[in-house]
Formats: sequence, structure tokens, C-alpha cells
Amino acid sequence: MSTATAGRATARANPVPAPRRVRTVRVALAGCGTVGGSLVALVGLHREQIERRHGVRFELARVLVRDPVKTRAVTLPGQLVTTELREFLRTDADIVVEAIGGLDAAEQLVRGALEKGRHVVTANKALIAAHGPALQRLADAHGATLHFEAAVGGGVPIVRALRGELAGHGVRTITGILNGTTNFLLTALADGARFAEALADAQARGFAEADPSRDLQGLDAADKIRILSWLAWGVEPADLRVLVEPLPLDPEPLARQAAARGGVLKYLAGAVREEDGSVRAWVRPVIVPGDHAFARVRDEENAVHIDSHSLGVLRLQGRGAGGDATASAVLGDLIEAVR
Amino acid sequence: MSTATAGRATARANPVPAPRRVRTVRVALAGCGTVGGSLVALVGLHREQIERRHGVRFELARVLVRDPVKTRAVTLPGQLVTTELREFLRTDADIVVEAIGGLDAAEQLVRGALEKGRHVVTANKALIAAHGPALQRLADAHGATLHFEAAVGGGVPIVRALRGELAGHGVRTITGILNGTTNFLLTALADGARFAEALADAQARGFAEADPSRDLQGLDAADKIRILSWLAWGVEPADLRVLVEPLPLDPEPLARQAAARGGVLKYLAGAVREEDGSVRAWVRPVIVPGDHAFARVRDEENAVHIDSHSLGVLRLQGRGAGGDATASAVLGDLIEAVR
Repeated sequence: MSTATAGRATARANPVPAPRRVRTVRVALAGCGTVGGSLVALVGLHREQIERRHGVRFELARVLVRDPVKTRAVTLPGQLVTTELREFLRTDADIVVEAIGGLDAAEQLVRGALEKGRHVVTANKALIAAHGPALQRLADAHGATLHFEAAVGGGVPIVRALRGELAGHGVRTITGILNGTTNFLLTALADGARFAEALADAQARGFAEADPSRDLQGLDAADKIRILSWLAWGVEPADLRVLVEPLPLDPEPLARQAAARGGVLKYLAGAVREEDGSVRAWVRPVIVPGDHAFARVRDEENAVHIDSHSLGVLRLQGRGAGGDATASAVLGDLIEAVR
Repeated sequence: MSTATAGRATARANPVPAPRRVRTVRVALAGCGTVGGSLVALVGLHREQIERRHGVRFELARVLVRDPVKTRAVTLPGQLVTTELREFLRTDADIVVEAIGGLDAAEQLVRGALEKGRHVVTANKALIAAHGPALQRLADAHGATLHFEAAVGGGVPIVRALRGELAGHGVRTITGILNGTTNFLLTALADGARFAEALADAQARGFAEADPSRDLQGLDAADKIRILSWLAWGVEPADLRVLVEPLPLDPEPLARQAAARGGVLKYLAGAVREEDGSVRAWVRPVIVPGDHAFARVRDEENAVHIDSHSLGVLRLQGRGAGGDATASAVLGDLIEAVR
């Protein structure tokens, strides 16, 4: 867009925006599993809309995978695929998307990309909870940006809210349902399902990992509340002690007890800023009253309530797990990174 | 922050973040009424937190007012105050905040600031609904940025969500309570108040204007749904025809009828993207069932539900009117503008 003045167009019944000049942005994608695969599909599906609205065409420059011959939901051009991190980082790209998960390899990859001044988009909550502030400083030092909206709340714009509206002023408490997998399981229990069948269903739908213990033990939610506490109050997430009470190995009796009391069993996470400036964070199963807003958060949804001095209670709720929701947040970050 | 590497600090019981180097950002503020005054107070109140979290100190460079001797909630240093637009624009500043409202003077001011390459933050929904795309192009052409989170939904980060997560991909419908004044009035009616006393109460609390007709006739909500449709689908907001049904002059009978049916009278706005790419937008009183999420949106709150291809329904709810909520959104934009 280069014109500095623009008159008001004449009225049309069906306003369809005019195309704008499109620039190509090269994206190097590390990992092509649930999130990476959904991202490639999503960018393909909405290519035209993204070009028209944002003047950007995302072009896959390189894809890092562990197993190059594995069958995938999306087809990758063979010449783009590599299994070598060094080769991946050598590729000329504007943005690196980290979707391999885990800690050590992901950290090495993100550091390598930021040191080359590339923007990084990641959905990796464990990485951000462990190294977020250090990676942010690295990004700042190299003129790059670090985006991780997808690391907390899937498609719910909670990171953006804490970096925007609520950026550093007056957040008092954060409370939420931050783990989509356990909320899916607890919703099924409330609807009368057995725990084992609900877990198998969640795994079949791609919400729960093959090993769901990080979800069930509250470690995933703890990472997320660490990240939110960092954004809200600047505390070092890796140093924040979170009091974690795992879900019972068999949550059925507790869920029945909740129903008998007219409530619903939910797995909540929260953080409070105390008067002395310290932060108290926790993850635990809670029986919420049937008419509470959290009782209405179903299936894989996430919800967060943020109470702040100037805004009162801000409530965000939406799809918190699944490849599409996460990929959608990653795509939003991609668009923000090149704006 | 200049260090490129950072080890993990040792664990502390009460992590309190270290101060960072602070740079000064000069802000020229146009208008010091409800929003402008709240902003000055808010920045003062959270100065330390903002410096620590974002490394930024906002310094008032100039204040444009109509009446320099008017009594205000905040004290302005006399040498900063001017009543002359030209003098205001000549002031060296990094960011201009437009909080005078209205159309012509506000447009002239925002154009003048953008043409000088200054970032602009505005809460002016009428201005953005009429000239948003043209002002955005002007900003792009001069390397400036245009922020207007506060123009829609007060402190609810709806603009940020549509520019991020949902940026240009697959939004199907937008539905919401976008006018805090009428929601405050309708909540009071549902609670048994008379319309006239509820209106006086809203005016006393600063939610309703002295002349609330733009709210009651749906024109304010129509401007907001125009802006959201622009962000979601790229339609020219000024050209979008919105089918507006005003609130009845006396909404009490309709509110009683709603209560008799177990529902609540709400003033809703919405937009749908049709198969052919056209957009249908509307504002109208609706009786929503008592167990609907919108029935639980009380007082001056706003709420928006956005249904999209990849995210399902995203729900945002929070304080939508009042100086503090709006000023908080403006402050978030200020921080974003200098990031």
C-alpha cells in the first residue's frame, strides 16, 4: 500500500476488498506432526484470504523432520525436507516455526534461529516456561521477535491480552482451565462416561498425548501458569514454585461427588500477586458450582479469568487443544511477526 | 536488555524481577476528558510496573484541550497545555493519543500525526468506522502504526484477537454485546429499575453521554460492528450497510416480556459472512434465553463471540465502558506501539 490519501469509495451492496501488493515471507518449519501439519494445511486453505488481507504470502523454505519417509496428512516437497538441524538453520528464511516440542533440541533450534536475527514462533510451553525470559532477551539483542501465543490456551488470545490490555499494569489474579485434555476428560465424566473410555477417545481425537501423564499430573497446566505469571508480573517462570495437586488416578468418585452437590469437577490453575509483590501459583482439582462460568467450559475448551485493577474481570474462552486451534494461534503469530 | 545469554537464576521464594534500562517515550495527548484523564492517572499509578516490565517511561510532551482553565481530575503542568492543533502537532513526540472524539477535528489531527510518521493510538470508533482503512494506508505509507483497541469493546481485546489469532482466516460470524451503556440500562431494567432512573445512574457513573441517543439508537454498536467486519473480512467499514433496529423509546415492556419468558432483553450486534463473500451486519434488541452466555453479561460489560473455521467459538467478555477500561486499552496500545 503506497497511496497516502484515499477517498471514500462509493457504496456497494457486497463490499469485496481489492487485492493488495503481496510480498513473500519465507518460513522454515521445524516439526511436521499435529501442529506443524495443521499449520501447513491451514496456510494452504486460507492462502488467498491472507494475501488479500495482509499482503503476505507464506512460502515454506525448509522443513525439519525426524523421519523423512513417514506418512503425513500433508504432502511436503521432497527437496524442502531435511533431518539435519544445522542444514535447517543454514536455510535462508524470515521466520522459524518451532513445532518439534520438548526441551533440549527445541532450545538449541530457537537459540540458533534468534542468533541469526530470525523471528521465531513457537507453541512450546515447556520451552517458554523454562527459558522464556532468556530467549526474549536473546531476541531483543538480535533485533528478532519471539512469539508464543499457541503455548498457552491454544487459540485463546491470552498471551496477547497480557502483552496488550493488561501489559504490566495492575493484574491481581489469574484463574483458568488451562489444560484442554483434562477438561475433555472431566466433561466426559460429567456426562456419564467411564474414565478409561474417555481417555481413549481423547487420544483418538489428538487432544491427549500417547503418554498423558504431564496433563493428568498438572505439569502442563503448571508450565502455562508459569508463563502467564511471567507475562503478568515479570517473575522468572522457571523459578516460580507452583503448588500442584495432580488429578486423582481415578477421578470418577470425585466427579460423582461433585455432581451430587450440583457442581462440576474442573482442573483449575491460578496465580495471585500478594501485597508484598510475591506470586503464589497453584494447580488443583476443584468442584465448581453448576452456575459458575467455569462449569460451562466443555470438552477441550480453555478459559481464563484475569482480574485487574483497571479492567475488573476479563474472561476469555475458546478451543484450547487440537492441531487446528494451535496452528491457528501459530498462524496469527506469523502474521503479527511480519506486520 | 543487552546480554545475549542468560543462565537460570537460583530459586527464590518471592521472585521479584530486576529493573531494566528505561527509555523515555514522549506522548502527545489530544483531549483530557474521561479517557484522557483516566490515561494520565493510570500511567502515573503504574509507572514503576511499566518501567520494570517494559523498560519504557511515558512522558507527557503536550496536551491539547479545548478549555485550558477547566477543572480536571488530574493536574496538568501548565506549560504542556495548548488549545492550538497546529502547535500540538509541532511538538516533538513519539506517539500521539487521540482522545478528543468526534470526526472532523479528530481526523485532521490523526492525519497530521501519521503524516509526520508518528504512531497514533485512538479510542475513536466513529473515526475508525468512517476512515479506518484510509488512515491505516496513511500509517503504512509513513512507517507509522495505528492502534485502536479501545475503539471496540473497551478493555476486551477483540481488535487484538481479530488482528492476531483470527487474522484473515475463516471467521464465519461475529455476535456480541458491543455497547456498554445500553447493557448497563438493560441490566438495571432486568433487576427491576425504571428506565429513567437507570439512565440517570449510567450518566452519573460516566458510562452514558449527556446525549445517549447514539447508544440507544444503535449507532455506536453499528460503528463497532463495522470496524470488526473490516478487521475480519477486509470490507470497507464506511460502505458496510448495517441493519439497525433502535431500542424502543421505552424498553420496559419488552424487558418485562423477556422476563416473563424466562429470558433477558439484550441489545446485540452481529455480522455474518455469506457464501458469496458479502457481509450482512445488524444491530437489534433480542430476547436471549436465561441460560445463554449473553444473559450473564451484566452492567457495562461487553462480550463477543467469534465463530471461525479453525477455532470454533472464541468468547471474550469484560468491562466495555468507563474511563478506566478504555484508558487501560489505550495504555496497552501505547506499550504495543513502542515494542
